[in-house]
Amino acid sequence: MADQAATNVTWHEHNVTSEERQKLNGHKGAVLWFTGLSGCGKSTVANAVDRMLHDRGIHTFVLDGDNVRMGLNKNLSFAPEDRTENIRRIGEVSKLFCDAGVIVLSAFISPFRDDRDQVREILTGGQFHEIHVNASLETCEARDPKGLYKKARAGEIKGFTGIDAAYEAPENCEIELDADNKGIEELAKEIVSYLDEKGFLNA
Amino acid sequence: MADQAATNVTWHEHNVTSEERQKLNGHKGAVLWFTGLSGCGKSTVANAVDRMLHDRGIHTFVLDGDNVRMGLNKNLSFAPEDRTENIRRIGEVSKLFCDAGVIVLSAFISPFRDDRDQVREILTGGQFHEIHVNASLETCEARDPKGLYKKARAGEIKGFTGIDAAYEAPENCEIELDADNKGIEELAKEIVSYLDEKGFLNA
Repeated sequence: MADQAATNVTWHEHNVTSEERQKLNGHKGAVLWFTGLSGCGKSTVANAVDRMLHDRGIHTFVLDGDNVRMGLNKNLSFAPEDRTENIRRIGEVSKLFCDAGVIVLSAFISPFRDDRDQVREILTGGQFHEIHVNASLETCEARDPKGLYKKARAGEIKGFTGIDAAYEAPENCEIELDADNKGIEELAKEIVSYLDEKGFLNA
Repeated sequence: MADQAATNVTWHEHNVTSEERQKLNGHKGAVLWFTGLSGCGKSTVANAVDRMLHDRGIHTFVLDGDNVRMGLNKNLSFAPEDRTENIRRIGEVSKLFCDAGVIVLSAFISPFRDDRDQVREILTGGQFHEIHVNASLETCEARDPKGLYKKARAGEIKGFTGIDAAYEAPENCEIELDADNKGIEELAKEIVSYLDEKGFLNA
């Protein structure tokens, strides 16, 4: 028993650190937080950035509605308090990925400024990068890739961001993207250049 | 707008796959799920395995009470329904890490068989490996590294696993560890050998 306890202590003192994980990966961990209206291109730009980074050997992961709303957050609705819990959980998971040395791309409407600021607060080492995928409501509604605006206008969906629920645009985000006038590839390259300049793509 | 939409489609079709992430990492993703009584050594063995794998260049991450109970699951109690939600969320996060090509080591008492089986069910590709860190209640209570058994016996903690709450031992787990009689390093090596033999440490 004494030996066992002593062994425990030894191992705990040598836990793998975030710095060691980053060194193995060859780059830093970071959270790229994409916010914007439904249909603005958050997920598409995130996946484009993901592809560009992956092809450069960067360890990445995308969190979006596809892999979170059906899994971790399937017990949450779109009511305001559940939206807050939705973003809180995603923020915590993003932090875990960042601690693992991964560049995680989290793409969610995340309409409330306070919710996004809460995520920023738990990422204390400057790893949080808020990216506003700024497309006008007109642009998003004209695209309407999933037909959701049409349903919201018809009253079939209640509390839809931009229609009958607020979107609070970022005031001091790290990257503002002009998604009305620029294409996906151009927007994605802006983000990769930003990461390069900030030194996130090296260990 | 037409160009924009077309670009969207192109990018979506080239999303980075789990297979590509595994290829970049040089090994497969997997979930090592450590279950057992408080004080049995789950977290210690998990961290020892983590160190061994990391030193071999394997991309790993440890989920345990230290980084989950204070973050993602800080709004959950130890009541049975919250324990179930606790394990459900951790299972979903483990799946995300596995999809990212990481070998994730999840160390939680996870006392209920049904809860662990739910995690197994969402990991459909044979990535779930249940590891029973089997130490007797006598051993765990004698160690009592955090003084929790003493408090539970004194009635200061209610619903403590093994004292006044059930622990349902695995019936068909992948790895059964004799934590009463073997040391941390020996137990950790058993797990690494298992992963090696099963081919998880190669892409």
